[in-house]
Amino acid sequence: MTTRSARRREILDEETILDATATILRRHGPAKATVLDVARELGVSHGSVYRFFPSKAALREEVTRRWLTAGHGVLAGIAARTDLPPPARLESWLGTLFGTTRGQVADDPELFATFLVLVREQSGVVDAHVAELRRQIAGILADGAADGSLAPGPDLTGTAAAVLNAVTRFHHPAHAAAWERDSAEADFASLRALVLDALRPARSDG
Amino acid sequence: MTTRSARRREILDEETILDATATILRRHGPAKATVLDVARELGVSHGSVYRFFPSKAALREEVTRRWLTAGHGVLAGIAARTDLPPPARLESWLGTLFGTTRGQVADDPELFATFLVLVREQSGVVDAHVAELRRQIAGILADGAADGSLAPGPDLTGTAAAVLNAVTRFHHPAHAAAWERDSAEADFASLRALVLDALRPARSDG
Repeated sequence: MTTRSARRREILDEETILDATATILRRHGPAKATVLDVARELGVSHGSVYRFFPSKAALREEVTRRWLTAGHGVLAGIAARTDLPPPARLESWLGTLFGTTRGQVADDPELFATFLVLVREQSGVVDAHVAELRRQIAGILADGAADGSLAPGPDLTGTAAAVLNAVTRFHHPAHAAAWERDSAEADFASLRALVLDALRPARSDG
Repeated sequence: MTTRSARRREILDEETILDATATILRRHGPAKATVLDVARELGVSHGSVYRFFPSKAALREEVTRRWLTAGHGVLAGIAARTDLPPPARLESWLGTLFGTTRGQVADDPELFATFLVLVREQSGVVDAHVAELRRQIAGILADGAADGSLAPGPDLTGTAAAVLNAVTRFHHPAHAAAWERDSAEADFASLRALVLDALRPARSDG
């Protein structure tokens, strides 16, 4: 037989707490949401929440990290698709970056607005997110340099950063309002074509 | 002999009102600033201000427009420099766009924060600003297409939009915090090089 508190500890895990935190953030906004609100939502003491997350800051950080990295797996999968020629792989990767970010906004605009506030606070989490995205791009560029289908130049890391910076308008949450415009798809397609043109090997070398 | 009110009308002009509005916005922030505050700052009645700007909205719009277009003249001057080959002209234009915008932020960060709020409200003013910047880029691209130094493709307007979108991170006020980072100059240089690579004519055509 388990005691009531043992049963609670059984069901209380990081995922459950993070889901409840998302609910609370959606309801109260990032300024007013407290660890006590999260604990009440779960029917546990705030001490139980602190067992998993030592502070409100740690909880906010993990919520932000989870949200930012939600698309990493899909993107990493595309970056690893060696069956696709590197230019097509980069094209698909950039399209997925835009598509999944836009999808996150469309699915839950209120929670998104909250995350935008958190993202501004959590520069370390954002830096790690950006570093991972750059690593994935650099991997595709390296494959393209190896088979001659892309010409990223000698500084793969710098070029990967430039590629990600070039599409800021289509993945940084500050521009989310523009993604609903009629012209967004065409604007993104033009920009992506420009980026791929920049990486195309000179014809005389081909 | 002029009456006091006639003298006031003599010195009160759009520029004076807009300067006072900037002072008031800096002091009270965009949410609290009123036309009455502006009138008090100038020592005139709010009716005198309304003679130039029919509403608070019109005043806010003009302040935003003036701020956004502050750098247009310098940029238009570079776009018109036919003594510079089009690739060098575009390079200079993009550098000036980043430099002047960053300068505006550094010169007056409080007023900048206020303008950021206004810019979000004034989408029509922003659209006109973006259209003007795109026109200037398209002009450089047209010159480059004519002398064979750039290969912007058949859709000059679309390519100009893509070029401006590519440097969003280095001119859109939402990213101002990142412009103070040590890496900002190098990141901008890499991105600008990427954009120019995209527009370089294929070597076999040269």
